[in-house]
Amino acid sequence: MPEKSLIFPSGEYRGRIRALQREMARHDLDALLLTTPADVFYTTGFLTRFWESPARPWFVVVPAQGDPVAVIPSIGAELMGRCWISDVRTWNAPDPVDDGVSLLADTLTGLVPASGRIGIPMGLESHLRMPVADFLRLQEMITPRRIADGTAAVYRVREIKSEAEIAKIRASCAVADAAFERVPEFAGQGVPLARVFRDFQVALLQEGADWVSYVAGGAGPGGYGDVISPADERPLQTGDVLMLDTGAVREGYFCDFDRNFSIGRATDDVRRAHAALFAATDAALASLRPGMLARDLHRILSEALARQGTKTGGGRLGHGLGLTLTEWPSVTPLDATELREGMVLTLEPGVEIAPGRILVHEENIVLRADGPELLSCRAPAEMPEILG
Amino acid sequence: MPEKSLIFPSGEYRGRIRALQREMARHDLDALLLTTPADVFYTTGFLTRFWESPARPWFVVVPAQGDPVAVIPSIGAELMGRCWISDVRTWNAPDPVDDGVSLLADTLTGLVPASGRIGIPMGLESHLRMPVADFLRLQEMITPRRIADGTAAVYRVREIKSEAEIAKIRASCAVADAAFERVPEFAGQGVPLARVFRDFQVALLQEGADWVSYVAGGAGPGGYGDVISPADERPLQTGDVLMLDTGAVREGYFCDFDRNFSIGRATDDVRRAHAALFAATDAALASLRPGMLARDLHRILSEALARQGTKTGGGRLGHGLGLTLTEWPSVTPLDATELREGMVLTLEPGVEIAPGRILVHEENIVLRADGPELLSCRAPAEMPEILG
Repeated sequence: MPEKSLIFPSGEYRGRIRALQREMARHDLDALLLTTPADVFYTTGFLTRFWESPARPWFVVVPAQGDPVAVIPSIGAELMGRCWISDVRTWNAPDPVDDGVSLLADTLTGLVPASGRIGIPMGLESHLRMPVADFLRLQEMITPRRIADGTAAVYRVREIKSEAEIAKIRASCAVADAAFERVPEFAGQGVPLARVFRDFQVALLQEGADWVSYVAGGAGPGGYGDVISPADERPLQTGDVLMLDTGAVREGYFCDFDRNFSIGRATDDVRRAHAALFAATDAALASLRPGMLARDLHRILSEALARQGTKTGGGRLGHGLGLTLTEWPSVTPLDATELREGMVLTLEPGVEIAPGRILVHEENIVLRADGPELLSCRAPAEMPEILG
Repeated sequence: MPEKSLIFPSGEYRGRIRALQREMARHDLDALLLTTPADVFYTTGFLTRFWESPARPWFVVVPAQGDPVAVIPSIGAELMGRCWISDVRTWNAPDPVDDGVSLLADTLTGLVPASGRIGIPMGLESHLRMPVADFLRLQEMITPRRIADGTAAVYRVREIKSEAEIAKIRASCAVADAAFERVPEFAGQGVPLARVFRDFQVALLQEGADWVSYVAGGAGPGGYGDVISPADERPLQTGDVLMLDTGAVREGYFCDFDRNFSIGRATDDVRRAHAALFAATDAALASLRPGMLARDLHRILSEALARQGTKTGGGRLGHGLGLTLTEWPSVTPLDATELREGMVLTLEPGVEIAPGRILVHEENIVLRADGPELLSCRAPAEMPEILG
């Protein structure tokens, strides 16, 4: 009989739980209550697109010792039953009277002493995926047990990727690399941007994405206006810069990088901006080391851009990556998160060529003891031109 | 100069805000605080896949009178600037010290009197998309103003779709109808389920989906085990029932229906189960009327299944649909939501053929004064067989 575990061998998950329990002890937490797709997948291997339905909450409780307990809607019992954990408690959701709250409260009071503290991720870049009214009711039902801040306990563990996780992210990056190679087949002068977005998603699927959780981009003369808008029907024109950005997913792990293409010959200011972004990325690849802080990486990138005579906007210049399209930390002047060996990050310098015309450039790396290792194939030093 | 508004003319959004403000008055709410992709899109037209990044919170405040105010990360300023609202306040997110909380508190205290009540959706099927620690801090900063339950004020408005919205959902359904037509081109004996899932997503994109937020399904001999698992590499075999289910998105609106296919000739028990599901759907199409409750629809469907000698599982048998893959109400024995004219719903009867072998069937409808109008093309009465 094959080992009962999905995506990874059960040893991977057991190692994660031990690491979480070490952090919980450091933070004086008697349990963690997890509710998001990424945290549930991380601890159990439960992977489904069904999270797209906001109807039902899902819970995983990590006790101070022992294996996690899943408290989930019965529609998930079959899939969770194929995961490595054995204690799966279900209710028939959605239930307008009691949508799992009593079952969760019973579980928590059974696992946590009355004086105990139950951590939830509640800090920057976190959400609680359950109705607020149910959360308030839960707090009352588990009294005198208290809800406490479990953000650091979860983040300090999840942010260090195992070699098995790094291999998954590398595989997602390879899917996007292959799809970016094919962009000149379907993008060019006269093709509406919306068609380019569709064909790019098709290429990602054909190259091996399980699904495409994110595609964005932009196109405009000599740069684009923003990087988060959906595509419109405007045809690409000579002189446009086209940018495509993706979060393709394979086996639950994301890539997140973009590529730029010039429709026709690139203008001098586009070339200069692209060269500056390439040089800034070089600077980060050469000098980033474990022990630096996220804000140090921001400084490395922005100083390199300044040396090239270009100017970055106010946004972040990179972020964590893995089980979601973006993870903490954020490469901003304010983020003091320590960058450690095994972190997977994006390097995402951007410049403003002129008001309303920007250029962004993104690579995915894993931070090793001696510096960054690329997970995406490095973008070409010269922006590719799609001619004719 | 074209009207400044995305997806719909600004009159559509103004009508929504007036309807929300009428419900707010009924519930004694001085403002609504909205945080989810669907609520922000509903009130402003702000549509982006950037929500896939959990890094940043986004806020829309609907005051008791006047237009909504957006309090958002500056990365969204360009896109929100093309929407119909004019009061857009931004901060540079993510900010580990103050991620928009002060700006939001200032906005709320400026719009709401000190004795006022600020509604948030906090009930069944809702989430608050901001960090819990920031929410607790916000509550302190806006005191003596109180947070109150705004679930009903939002749900009673959003659940009634305008004709413009119904047209969008119908267009999404047409995309899926066209893609389902093509399933026999790429699914058949010997094809791994994972390849079928990929090709189905490609077909949805080629038929006009902007993106594919949800594809699930299952395949197994004489029925499938569950409906939420990702695809595996097992090749389809003669005797399998293949089910594909989709939430394809076009202009921000979802469809959500499935189709079943027999690989080779359908067995007698599969035919009987399919006929029972078809008859149960017929019963609902014939007898559902505005004024019934969600639980009445559950009764209609489950009694029709019982008349056919089949047995449904414990799950819900349909739900709302529109800006998300699933919306309230839930077609369960407990949901007392009134079904009203203009609601878009799924009819989703399911039967258990044998332990671990189920069959589900789904159509999308809009409820009219005289009963349901189909938005999906009705599934064939006999399950299509993919032969050879």
